[in-house]
Amino acid sequence: MNDRSPAGTSPDPAPHTLDAGLLSPVRAGTPVELAVSDTAWLQAMLDAEAALARAQAALGLVPPSAAEAITEAARAERLDLRALAVHARESANPVVGLVGALTRTVAAVDPEAAAYVHRGSTSQDIFDTAAMLVSRDALRLLRADLARVADALAGLALEHRDTVLPGRTLALHAVPTTFGLKAAGWRQSVLAADTRVAAVLAALPVSLGGAAGTLAGYTEHGADPERLVAEFAAETGLGIPGLPWHTLRTPLADLAAALAHCAGALGKLAVDVQSLTRTEVGEVVEPYVPGRGSSSAMPQKRNPVLATLIRSAALQVPALAGVLNQCMLSEDERSGGAWHAEWQPLRECLRLTGGAAHTAVELTEGLVVRPERMRANLRLTGGAIVAERLVAALAPLLGKAAARELLTRVTGAADRDRRPLAEHLEAAPELAGRISADELRRLCDPAGYLGDAPGLVTRSLRSATTSDC
Amino acid sequence: MNDRSPAGTSPDPAPHTLDAGLLSPVRAGTPVELAVSDTAWLQAMLDAEAALARAQAALGLVPPSAAEAITEAARAERLDLRALAVHARESANPVVGLVGALTRTVAAVDPEAAAYVHRGSTSQDIFDTAAMLVSRDALRLLRADLARVADALAGLALEHRDTVLPGRTLALHAVPTTFGLKAAGWRQSVLAADTRVAAVLAALPVSLGGAAGTLAGYTEHGADPERLVAEFAAETGLGIPGLPWHTLRTPLADLAAALAHCAGALGKLAVDVQSLTRTEVGEVVEPYVPGRGSSSAMPQKRNPVLATLIRSAALQVPALAGVLNQCMLSEDERSGGAWHAEWQPLRECLRLTGGAAHTAVELTEGLVVRPERMRANLRLTGGAIVAERLVAALAPLLGKAAARELLTRVTGAADRDRRPLAEHLEAAPELAGRISADELRRLCDPAGYLGDAPGLVTRSLRSATTSDC
Amino acid sequence: MNDRSPAGTSPDPAPHTLDAGLLSPVRAGTPVELAVSDTAWLQAMLDAEAALARAQAALGLVPPSAAEAITEAARAERLDLRALAVHARESANPVVGLVGALTRTVAAVDPEAAAYVHRGSTSQDIFDTAAMLVSRDALRLLRADLARVADALAGLALEHRDTVLPGRTLALHAVPTTFGLKAAGWRQSVLAADTRVAAVLAALPVSLGGAAGTLAGYTEHGADPERLVAEFAAETGLGIPGLPWHTLRTPLADLAAALAHCAGALGKLAVDVQSLTRTEVGEVVEPYVPGRGSSSAMPQKRNPVLATLIRSAALQVPALAGVLNQCMLSEDERSGGAWHAEWQPLRECLRLTGGAAHTAVELTEGLVVRPERMRANLRLTGGAIVAERLVAALAPLLGKAAARELLTRVTGAADRDRRPLAEHLEAAPELAGRISADELRRLCDPAGYLGDAPGLVTRSLRSATTSDC
Amino acid sequence: MNDRSPAGTSPDPAPHTLDAGLLSPVRAGTPVELAVSDTAWLQAMLDAEAALARAQAALGLVPPSAAEAITEAARAERLDLRALAVHARESANPVVGLVGALTRTVAAVDPEAAAYVHRGSTSQDIFDTAAMLVSRDALRLLRADLARVADALAGLALEHRDTVLPGRTLALHAVPTTFGLKAAGWRQSVLAADTRVAAVLAALPVSLGGAAGTLAGYTEHGADPERLVAEFAAETGLGIPGLPWHTLRTPLADLAAALAHCAGALGKLAVDVQSLTRTEVGEVVEPYVPGRGSSSAMPQKRNPVLATLIRSAALQVPALAGVLNQCMLSEDERSGGAWHAEWQPLRECLRLTGGAAHTAVELTEGLVVRPERMRANLRLTGGAIVAERLVAALAPLLGKAAARELLTRVTGAADRDRRPLAEHLEAAPELAGRISADELRRLCDPAGYLGDAPGLVTRSLRSATTSDC
Repeated sequence: MNDRSPAGTSPDPAPHTLDAGLLSPVRAGTPVELAVSDTAWLQAMLDAEAALARAQAALGLVPPSAAEAITEAARAERLDLRALAVHARESANPVVGLVGALTRTVAAVDPEAAAYVHRGSTSQDIFDTAAMLVSRDALRLLRADLARVADALAGLALEHRDTVLPGRTLALHAVPTTFGLKAAGWRQSVLAADTRVAAVLAALPVSLGGAAGTLAGYTEHGADPERLVAEFAAETGLGIPGLPWHTLRTPLADLAAALAHCAGALGKLAVDVQSLTRTEVGEVVEPYVPGRGSSSAMPQKRNPVLATLIRSAALQVPALAGVLNQCMLSEDERSGGAWHAEWQPLRECLRLTGGAAHTAVELTEGLVVRPERMRANLRLTGGAIVAERLVAALAPLLGKAAARELLTRVTGAADRDRRPLAEHLEAAPELAGRISADELRRLCDPAGYLGDAPGLVTRSLRSATTSDC
Repeated sequence: MNDRSPAGTSPDPAPHTLDAGLLSPVRAGTPVELAVSDTAWLQAMLDAEAALARAQAALGLVPPSAAEAITEAARAERLDLRALAVHARESANPVVGLVGALTRTVAAVDPEAAAYVHRGSTSQDIFDTAAMLVSRDALRLLRADLARVADALAGLALEHRDTVLPGRTLALHAVPTTFGLKAAGWRQSVLAADTRVAAVLAALPVSLGGAAGTLAGYTEHGADPERLVAEFAAETGLGIPGLPWHTLRTPLADLAAALAHCAGALGKLAVDVQSLTRTEVGEVVEPYVPGRGSSSAMPQKRNPVLATLIRSAALQVPALAGVLNQCMLSEDERSGGAWHAEWQPLRECLRLTGGAAHTAVELTEGLVVRPERMRANLRLTGGAIVAERLVAALAPLLGKAAARELLTRVTGAADRDRRPLAEHLEAAPELAGRISADELRRLCDPAGYLGDAPGLVTRSLRSATTSDC
Repeated sequence: MNDRSPAGTSPDPAPHTLDAGLLSPVRAGTPVELAVSDTAWLQAMLDAEAALARAQAALGLVPPSAAEAITEAARAERLDLRALAVHARESANPVVGLVGALTRTVAAVDPEAAAYVHRGSTSQDIFDTAAMLVSRDALRLLRADLARVADALAGLALEHRDTVLPGRTLALHAVPTTFGLKAAGWRQSVLAADTRVAAVLAALPVSLGGAAGTLAGYTEHGADPERLVAEFAAETGLGIPGLPWHTLRTPLADLAAALAHCAGALGKLAVDVQSLTRTEVGEVVEPYVPGRGSSSAMPQKRNPVLATLIRSAALQVPALAGVLNQCMLSEDERSGGAWHAEWQPLRECLRLTGGAAHTAVELTEGLVVRPERMRANLRLTGGAIVAERLVAALAPLLGKAAARELLTRVTGAADRDRRPLAEHLEAAPELAGRISADELRRLCDPAGYLGDAPGLVTRSLRSATTSDC
Repeated sequence: MNDRSPAGTSPDPAPHTLDAGLLSPVRAGTPVELAVSDTAWLQAMLDAEAALARAQAALGLVPPSAAEAITEAARAERLDLRALAVHARESANPVVGLVGALTRTVAAVDPEAAAYVHRGSTSQDIFDTAAMLVSRDALRLLRADLARVADALAGLALEHRDTVLPGRTLALHAVPTTFGLKAAGWRQSVLAADTRVAAVLAALPVSLGGAAGTLAGYTEHGADPERLVAEFAAETGLGIPGLPWHTLRTPLADLAAALAHCAGALGKLAVDVQSLTRTEVGEVVEPYVPGRGSSSAMPQKRNPVLATLIRSAALQVPALAGVLNQCMLSEDERSGGAWHAEWQPLRECLRLTGGAAHTAVELTEGLVVRPERMRANLRLTGGAIVAERLVAALAPLLGKAAARELLTRVTGAADRDRRPLAEHLEAAPELAGRISADELRRLCDPAGYLGDAPGLVTRSLRSATTSDC
């Protein structure tokens, strides 16, 4: 494209400096980053133009040779990406400039074919179809990573089905659980997200409506509208929409929902890993890679950088997904602004979530679990972690209220003097002669109070994929 | 409940003044408002306690008479709602106080039964199950209203399948469309939302995990965990979750997504109605009700209040849904804050969306359509609205570029002198002798350039329900 | 008000059940909850009407007796709040109904005065002025609580200026800090928030624009517009705006910003308290109140409920503030929806932030600090927490790279064998003969590596109020 | 930097394709885009490192020659931006890699100086200081554009102080206003935003805290902490913070608030321009630039692309600002995720708002105003637009209620038969003999019912800058 950039703007001689990933390490260098790059988006728009020409050729409305010439010319490297981006200010979208540049490229090879570029079409048909193509590529990468994460978590769940650690609620030890159950829970959330992503992926539609969603531009050139949409869908591999959706943004809302769900599921994993990594807790450590997690100042540190990256994504995606939801309020047949506000947030949702999933593969496949620290932490409260059980067990002897009072008293005492709860109970006058020391010690063993944790793990792993929660 | 409110807080002698709907007319007085009220939530928590007792009775763990006594006592009107609310500050949730109050109520009638209240349970099991029960009621109301909206829109789409009006993009006339296609589009979005709401409604699960999601409190009292969950689900009519979900918030994320989708679909309808209602446009008018839409100052006004109310909801829901998504980052086995941050946003999402749907019933069932204003507006640009068509039609005569140049010139001239485009074209030297005045007039008729609009309407209405977009 | 509720809505015989605070314990029973209640909002609207009448009387446009009669009648308890709320659906705001009801009330006492109710006015003038009055009351409560929080934190900062604990970054021990510095930081954030709240509070303006912001309704009745605004401001105690602001929403944006800032500052305090409260960390405990923080299941727990409540608010406010920011896109002279979408989010921001501040008073005034646990935690890594210092100290002996390598090696070893870092260093061959064991032990003392922490505390406390960060 | 990218990531041979502005035309090619580019951010980090070295040299802690060598080496073009970005995954931030690369660059020239790179420092000090430097540059650009926008709007306000057009509320004509008052309102909002931006700009602080905010790394190397901060601030031109703010995020919250305010003020302007541009309204047209605003399909269109671009930004910024607010919940001395989640949203807020302001310069300096269309639109309702006035004027003759009833009747009749309201009034029996036809016609003149609009404009323009609303 030879267009000059418009007055008042300064073309950048090195546009790559705008974003090399410096501010978003969660996706820097991951495959999804390239899959949703401007180059990818440009290529997807060109792919949409080419597919449209071929679809029209299939209906006999465009000469096959013209469709071929357009397809041949539709290559991103032949266009000046930055010039197109800057020129997009003139029409509020990059398709107008792209059509001009593509037409010139085609005309240089096959002047007659040039007349068939973008025939009967409109910017939004091309842009939205491209957005679906880019999203498809990104979601495929995402699903592949989610599958690996789920597999890794299944392995952890199975291996640690019976590995006891403190269950924690509102920051405090509650009752024991198993690490396997934690891993099975993470896995189930990831699978639930994947189920939703898969449904969205399967339904991504082409966009074909013409200037105002009536397909008039296409029919004016002779197209049977139903056949054209079907051919266009076949050429792109995307789905057939119920109606043109220029301002019926169901596909965007669906993407927003699935990606926010996915980011949330991965973020849950990340905050748990951070919680378990704390120096005082020490129950898991991120996979060791030389140089990884080092601090610029502190040699002893092995920071949980993977969890940090994942969480950084999960803190951003809900707000960006909210922008996509808000943009459903697209007035008329095309919104002046609500459409344009979707683009960058959609890309961010795709690459943040995709980057987080890619990072989670590494995190879950290499997570180091420390059962010995879990056991040590279980001992920290001297047995208070099974107080709930003791109330239940002693209630038949003392009454529920008295049992609860006793436990409140002795857990407080154990917290102060750091002696085991069992000793305090043995010394409790109200229990004198009513229960043996052995029985008390048995009741105080955290490993004996796991409820259904192992069973839940086993049953949860049986379901290869599940949308249940 | 006779508990004193805690120090530092002032019990309100007339707590009803907190929220009577004054700041949210979109839901004031609509059925969903009561369905998600504090009383409804309190009753749902009591229903969950009662269902748990009956489920345990079904397993032989609780005497049937105790389950009956608990069920009998579990009535919201017997408890002091405000006192429970204020007391919830002591434990950060209202269940602790509710269990105490319910236990006292039961004990007053059947002292032995009191021991079986909340047996083995935990606050989050009761609260989250109640949230699902409340959501179920609200979603059912929502779906009923969505069905009526979709029906009304189907009627409008059918009636106005061929009613021509200007299609508008970026605030300007683009090409003609039909009002039926607009209505069919609104309907399709509403049906897409309903499909998603229906899926969420069908999957709402009970919450049953015990103190830290292992079900240990229940198993300690002898419960077979799988059977207990199944009985609890049967008693409440909710679904069986894959795993306890205290910090695996898929159900909340699903609710958020479906409600945001629904609010967006209704909001799209609202902004379109507003656009078409503008004084200068005047193509639709909201249903006339004496006194409705009047201004406190201006007697001539008949404000589009229904669209205003719906839009006011649609501007709030995405942000609230975003809070629910963010709260998926729930650390450990129960979050200290992320759980508690969900409650009010969930209620707001339910009642704003439900209120918007209820309002949309009235809007769509009574919407007044003014085809004569549509025709007048089509004439405003003297035919420029079919310029796209003219380029296509004249390109074979003049070449595409020259045709486009001609149309740019004559539409500009027509805009200035307000004479019909056809006259300008007749006078254009480059067309002299190449096309008849009759043919030009035919080409300039907006009603002749509808593309597939009527066909799209017909086919769209064939699908009774569709998740397509 | 005797109006029937409109068709299709069901008046609630017990409207108080809509919201008694059950889903929002962070504000249930706190003073701000009543200050922003529907009753308060209704009274504020009535106060605005009365102030307007008095302002017009001051200009000689309304008989003084009429202004008195209106002022006398303008009492919330004389109106039917619920009926007004439901009736608001007819005009999309509650003022139209309120004017009717107030007029009838006045007319019953002084028929002539009735003609002067709402003279020349418009709904938004009354509603927005009321919103500012309600906000003023809420912000005053907020500031009083913030002052107490800041005082309590100043006390903690001073007392614990030199109390050493581990500084933590990315979940891991980094270098030592002091609890006083943490408290000084919390205080400074709270003061920064308060400075911003104070600026907003001082500038809250009356709203006076008439039907479309020209004041024409008022001038038509003879008012000098500048004087009228000044008198109205004087009567209400609010500020004079530069221009009518029906769709220039600076006051709302300012409120959103200040409240989000404040919620964030309090939320930071809350997440830190949660982090320090963790069972394994145990460095602080929330103030003990009998029954507070108890679990429905676990007698040993003393949950950090105050921090939980504060965090629950801080997770909601940013999204709600975002709605207010979004509503700045108010089209024309009054928006059909963007105005109406502000009301409930504004109230939520006020009561969530106000409730959080009220809760923070209790948290900070009673926070229990455990220096002995801090000391124990400092010992957990055997001295690795001062590794940064050792690199700096040993670099002159070994070179920076070698010093860093040594520390990486010995901190790893110390982590594995749990022996003190000093012992490992004493045994390091590269240090043999180059540094004494005493010097190594001195360097390994966390209390000797506090940097400027005490000095920062001292200087920070000197500034009574500061907007610096 | 010669480091290999880490395993599992694929370095991009042409990283510039990630973002050339294609998805964000509102900022593509505008100055702010480069000011916040990755290159700018990298240079700002290097500037921070160099300033730190010079500040330490000023304290005599670093040899002046070393500070010079570091300053000389600290040039972005000497480093491999993409490699640094990808490498940042290893430490979750780009500073660790940057320090290594800078050290090698320095060492190649002056081996001794290399030891002084990043002395005593930590990643967040460098990154956050750089963020403030980048923000400073962006805010300066922003303010320059806001000043031009305000000037242009002042010109429009003055010129059109008395240009009458319909005031519109809830989409309908309300009462007349003037275009000058609209422009004055836009200006005042822009000035209010600028006042807030200016305050934030003036206060942007350096970040200097060392590993955990105690400055220990610096003091260990001999620095007087107060002097060091002062020298660092002097070297960078930034402010002195009250305390290290690694997790006290007031500067970010302030930036978020000011930018959201600014985006909202510009967005308000944009939605009004869109509303006035509508084909049926036609009261303003965007500045004409050949090729600007053209459609890929429709030759007649001159789309309001500038308003579209501005609105697209304004729809995104509130959500992104909300992320920054949410990240105030930064736990401990450095958050594992909340810090990292700020970076890209901050950049987006800066460039979206800056791009919107740059776009608004063009929009406001060239906006075409069409008073003749305004006059025509005023006539559309035959005078109903002054119905409010007529009620006021006729009330003394008929009583307020009867006057209102009359106007409701005749405005309805005028809307149906399109005859002027004055004619209907002349024919009204209740007015017979009570008011002259001349007087009725005078009352029906919209230009006579402007209230204080011209006066408001005049007074508003007197205040060169104002934070009032």
